[in-house]
Amino acid sequence: MKVGKETRKSFYTLTSLEEVFQELSKINIERRVETIGINEAYGRVLAEDFFSPINVPHFRRAAKDGYAVKASDTFGAEEDEPKTLKLLGEIRAGEKDSQPVEKGGCIKIATGALVPEGADAVVMVEYTEEEENMVRVYRPVSPEENIIKIGRDIKEKQKILSKGTVLNIQDLGVLSATGATEVKVYSKPRVTVASTGDEIVSPGAELEPGKIYDINSITITQAVKQSGGEPIYRGVIPDDKDELIRAIKYALETADIAIFSGGTSKGPGDTVPTALREVSRPDFLIHGVSIKPGKPTAIAAYNGKPVFMLPGYPTSALMVYYTIVDPHIRRWAGLPPKSRPQVKAITGRRIYPERGRVNFQAVQLKREGEELMAYPVPTGSEAITTLASSQGYIEIKPEIQFIEEGEEVVVYLWS
Amino acid sequence: MKVGKETRKSFYTLTSLEEVFQELSKINIERRVETIGINEAYGRVLAEDFFSPINVPHFRRAAKDGYAVKASDTFGAEEDEPKTLKLLGEIRAGEKDSQPVEKGGCIKIATGALVPEGADAVVMVEYTEEEENMVRVYRPVSPEENIIKIGRDIKEKQKILSKGTVLNIQDLGVLSATGATEVKVYSKPRVTVASTGDEIVSPGAELEPGKIYDINSITITQAVKQSGGEPIYRGVIPDDKDELIRAIKYALETADIAIFSGGTSKGPGDTVPTALREVSRPDFLIHGVSIKPGKPTAIAAYNGKPVFMLPGYPTSALMVYYTIVDPHIRRWAGLPPKSRPQVKAITGRRIYPERGRVNFQAVQLKREGEELMAYPVPTGSEAITTLASSQGYIEIKPEIQFIEEGEEVVVYLWS
Repeated sequence: MKVGKETRKSFYTLTSLEEVFQELSKINIERRVETIGINEAYGRVLAEDFFSPINVPHFRRAAKDGYAVKASDTFGAEEDEPKTLKLLGEIRAGEKDSQPVEKGGCIKIATGALVPEGADAVVMVEYTEEEENMVRVYRPVSPEENIIKIGRDIKEKQKILSKGTVLNIQDLGVLSATGATEVKVYSKPRVTVASTGDEIVSPGAELEPGKIYDINSITITQAVKQSGGEPIYRGVIPDDKDELIRAIKYALETADIAIFSGGTSKGPGDTVPTALREVSRPDFLIHGVSIKPGKPTAIAAYNGKPVFMLPGYPTSALMVYYTIVDPHIRRWAGLPPKSRPQVKAITGRRIYPERGRVNFQAVQLKREGEELMAYPVPTGSEAITTLASSQGYIEIKPEIQFIEEGEEVVVYLWS
Repeated sequence: MKVGKETRKSFYTLTSLEEVFQELSKINIERRVETIGINEAYGRVLAEDFFSPINVPHFRRAAKDGYAVKASDTFGAEEDEPKTLKLLGEIRAGEKDSQPVEKGGCIKIATGALVPEGADAVVMVEYTEEEENMVRVYRPVSPEENIIKIGRDIKEKQKILSKGTVLNIQDLGVLSATGATEVKVYSKPRVTVASTGDEIVSPGAELEPGKIYDINSITITQAVKQSGGEPIYRGVIPDDKDELIRAIKYALETADIAIFSGGTSKGPGDTVPTALREVSRPDFLIHGVSIKPGKPTAIAAYNGKPVFMLPGYPTSALMVYYTIVDPHIRRWAGLPPKSRPQVKAITGRRIYPERGRVNFQAVQLKREGEELMAYPVPTGSEAITTLASSQGYIEIKPEIQFIEEGEEVVVYLWS
């Protein structure tokens, strides 16, 4: 077969996924710290160990409704032979003032209330009988019985949460218990997101013939949020080397990470790698990754700041994002690695991957009788409906020739 | 054993969890609709079917780099005997103007570009050779080859998303593809959250003896967010019947759902049910639920608006929230039922539940060799650390006498 002069040179050397991860693992984005209200802190990463400023409880607390007593005054009490104590007063939960309990006396107390001075136990109301100003106690209590000690739950200066904790609802509850209203967390890495391509226009704009609406901006910004990053949308960038260089430089000045997704208007062979080389001297530059889809993916870093150039097709861009970008943003955000939600399914059709690359095949899941079936989604990766009609994708190793119909596969779910 | 006059009457009739769900299933909170930007629409529920306003693509799009031709002009082309066409011009992606393709001519075209008038196929660049103003075509193409038809991906007026869809990233991508910038979703149910109790103070305030910091406000507001509700924090309400009545009335006027969690200062027998009866005539009133913890839980509704009175202890409040409140807020928000994340584990100690009630036992999970072990958390439900030291809880049916050490149980995870 003849190959014309105009044929684009697209046989650049592909980098394996392992090498891509190796390069990216060397990048450590500087973590900034910010103080935020605990009502906004859910899911954020604690930037320092948290020590309780107080004891919880910070006073001796009644565990039961009853009477605060000196335990020794109840010793020997029996059902037939109660001990009789003088009722000196009453204290409710939330009150701080009460006269002390003197020998032979008692104070009526509510669950949760402060145990008065002089008392060393609480007799449950069930074992008492109150009449006029006297209380008959039918069972003895030992010292400390039915009293929650100071600091029993949390001790002052005790470390209650460690640096690096991803704050969940219970953690926020514990922080509240110590009176905290704010907490120091890592700032989210700032991630610029932009689409490139002369044919791309932002939704809402008029759609002239030849143009298509930008899809990747919304999908990638939402995905960045889920990775723990703070997306900064930078719009659509024309498919021009100088414009791209300007956009990359601006991203590097103002953010920690830059993500672009390419239009389909120019081949992978020219604008992107040239621009990446001309921005300044990259720490490393990868152009072409041994995955399908996603071959034209380019990744570079400048003074430790990574720039990702994802393919333009929405499904490809999102697959490459989840495979390569997401685990690293999570790490840079201080979040633990996340196992992507997955299910096992049976292939409903034979799948022929492209050999020598890691293949990602979008699949549609269908329950058929007992079985969960995975059908490869037939439309090409240029179709946005591939995204919408598939629930996830399967990953096929480079050495696999084909996956037989009826084989069990792991499906990674989109969400 | 003697029982004193002061003993609170706490042997009210308990309602089973099934009956609670039955009553709540009758409540249908009116769904409001709002229009929001699609960049905020992740996880929201579509309030109407969405029909695409445009075809995607809305022009005939080249699927490959090459030359737009009349297919008939290439018929019979062979490697030894190419067809020669006149190069009439070029069209790039994003451009809209190009002269039409006339018989015997062709226009150079980029992937994604508009296929000019007159052309009915694209010859891939690989099978051509360009020289001066002539293009040699070495393979024939059939009509429509390498052209993405108008509306191939999405047709104008096609329903692409159904009412009730919980919008995920792909859905937002599809909406973007049609140029949508806004979408109609159900408003989140408004849920007031307040803590009651004379001993409760908000974090940040000074902590006098006898007082404790409010924990439930933060845990319940965060849990409401996760259920798809919009929490409205209403602060701490003193343990007083009239104050409570006022707070309930205000909540009913301004919100869809009200959640209070009780202080421990007063027993379940008085303030709450009296207040609930005096607010106005309730649709129903449940006081006392056959669960442990959570027995004093009270639930009422007024003109279809539910009011939940959760126990004051943080772990109890959260368990009752997840068991009773969460599934209903999800339903009222239009969200599908959620299976709580769960793991199987082996009990590390014998557990004695209280019979006749559904018991929820907080457990600590520990990996021991091959086994995931679940240890009941020994501290009482008054301890906030029960929350922090446990990863989830097991549910024990009323008829179970005990769970043997080494038995397999399902642990529902907090998050």
